[in-house]
Amino acid sequence: MSDQRSDHHYLGLALEQAQLGWDEGGVPIGAALVHRGEVLAVGRNRRVQLGSAIRHGETDCIETAGRLPAKVYRESVLYTTLSPCFMCAGTAVLYDIPRIVVGENRSFEASESWLRSRGVTIDVLDDAACHALMQRMMSERPQLWAEDIGEEA
Amino acid sequence: MSDQRSDHHYLGLALEQAQLGWDEGGVPIGAALVHRGEVLAVGRNRRVQLGSAIRHGETDCIETAGRLPAKVYRESVLYTTLSPCFMCAGTAVLYDIPRIVVGENRSFEASESWLRSRGVTIDVLDDAACHALMQRMMSERPQLWAEDIGEEA
Repeated sequence: MSDQRSDHHYLGLALEQAQLGWDEGGVPIGAALVHRGEVLAVGRNRRVQLGSAIRHGETDCIETAGRLPAKVYRESVLYTTLSPCFMCAGTAVLYDIPRIVVGENRSFEASESWLRSRGVTIDVLDDAACHALMQRMMSERPQLWAEDIGEEA
Repeated sequence: MSDQRSDHHYLGLALEQAQLGWDEGGVPIGAALVHRGEVLAVGRNRRVQLGSAIRHGETDCIETAGRLPAKVYRESVLYTTLSPCFMCAGTAVLYDIPRIVVGENRSFEASESWLRSRGVTIDVLDDAACHALMQRMMSERPQLWAEDIGEEA
């Protein structure tokens, strides 16, 4: 696969997770962690499913990947359906993940300039399906969305 | 209790968690989340205990506190035995936690200037017991410590 095709492929895995999260009644944001072409883990926001304040798509994915040597993170790409919040951005910075591929950032964007200032490459695919799912989320579950990003509903 | 006495009291709860984590074979960093004088949760790094890449002292504490309204975080203080990494700092920023009390930052410091730039008050108590425990950690379990902060051992 070309880089561009593979980016869309891995983002598709993240989007499957997001859709699953939506179907479970949760926040539809998904992620995938890919090391040199190998999918180490996928994950999804599980605030509702696990009653969790820290399981966003990206952190759930990194948790599912388990304990990894520093070298692996430093050679990996994190795919996420939505631009990362600061918790997830900070997790990528902690582990020196060099590149994040973002499904879309029109629904939410907080950390991209900070991530770039820390040397992280951010590629935004502006994917229509990621965006449509988040628009549905924000319209149909606005209080849950506010909670997920620490805002008063 | 005076503010200063209560800070040392709540830091003591975090230090108990850190000591427990050390005794379990883990990374001895603990935290407490306190809302207007009420302890909402304590937590400790559970990388070893749970095989976790995201359960640092602060995030474990916030996870244990469960899903909270934005307003509660915005009135809370996060106590931690060691200056927060960027994952934990980002979590505090996500939830607009206004103040972090740090046991010590001589063993590790990464995020304090960034947190201050985001409006978070950081008070460092430079606690001798917190420092001694981390020095023991770095000396006796250096590979585990490197893993915990995403560094190559």
